[in-house]
Amino acid sequence: MADSGRTPQARALLQQCLHARLQVRPAEGDVEAEWVEVQRGLVIYVCFFKGADKELLPKMVNTLLNVKLSETENGKHVSILDLPGNILIIPQATLGGRVKGRSMQYHCNSGKEEGLELYSQFVNLCTKELAANSKCAEAGVVVKHGTYGNRQVLKLDTNGPYTHLIEF
Amino acid sequence: MADSGRTPQARALLQQCLHARLQVRPAEGDVEAEWVEVQRGLVIYVCFFKGADKELLPKMVNTLLNVKLSETENGKHVSILDLPGNILIIPQATLGGRVKGRSMQYHCNSGKEEGLELYSQFVNLCTKELAANSKCAEAGVVVKHGTYGNRQVLKLDTNGPYTHLIEF
Repeated sequence: MADSGRTPQARALLQQCLHARLQVRPAEGDVEAEWVEVQRGLVIYVCFFKGADKELLPKMVNTLLNVKLSETENGKHVSILDLPGNILIIPQATLGGRVKGRSMQYHCNSGKEEGLELYSQFVNLCTKELAANSKCAEAGVVVKHGTYGNRQVLKLDTNGPYTHLIEF
Repeated sequence: MADSGRTPQARALLQQCLHARLQVRPAEGDVEAEWVEVQRGLVIYVCFFKGADKELLPKMVNTLLNVKLSETENGKHVSILDLPGNILIIPQATLGGRVKGRSMQYHCNSGKEEGLELYSQFVNLCTKELAANSKCAEAGVVVKHGTYGNRQVLKLDTNGPYTHLIEF
């Protein structure tokens, strides 16, 4: 995890969901908006900062997928891989904002191209990890994700979001 | 805001909502669960750390209610007081967690009694600020809040959560 005192390279916000639905393409003219959805699982909002290195990603994915924050039927906390549950990844650059007066500034955020590259690799790594896990493959759980740069229109249904912040 | 490098006294996570519904008392026997709900507005998840001082609260409320994160019909960002919009406050101690191996630890969180006191005063201050604002009073917007210590069963509908983290 990020040492306190230095600027993190990435920030992830985790919430547990029973069901979540995310717009991945807005409506345009006669074409309806496109959505992805997941049943029970983990919502990962992710934001990368300037200087974030892709070497960070495997460790980041390993931490997020193995930290025990998902509740079983018996009230025990296990990882999302062990639940097993679905994953919804939401690019959320606003998470990198800092208050300046009455506005937020995003000077520490990674640039758009760099951020997109990191986000895409992050999504790919999560997808691979889930696919490589036999419990997840058997249960048929999936990774879904939002479109980088879009407005993340989200509908979230929880049994307690159990919100956690993890910096890297 | 908290200087980087020192432990914050409080952490607030902000999301914009079109509608949100939060359980404030779970079902018990034949008695149905009790919920509060808000229409368009701001969801504030809040967590206090050890050493948080109640002197902090007025500044904290002032920042959260005046930072320009709420979108008008025209796409301009204004404060929740200027929108004007509703506020849903959710006590979320999990926001204070730190990763240790595969588990989260909450050693930095304020104690339960202290946390409840800070939370109650925070809710009261937000309620007073909204009531004292003529725009909010005219629009009939409200402050609703979760029950400290309970599971925060939440249903959230957004047009983009526009998630922001602010530490104090």
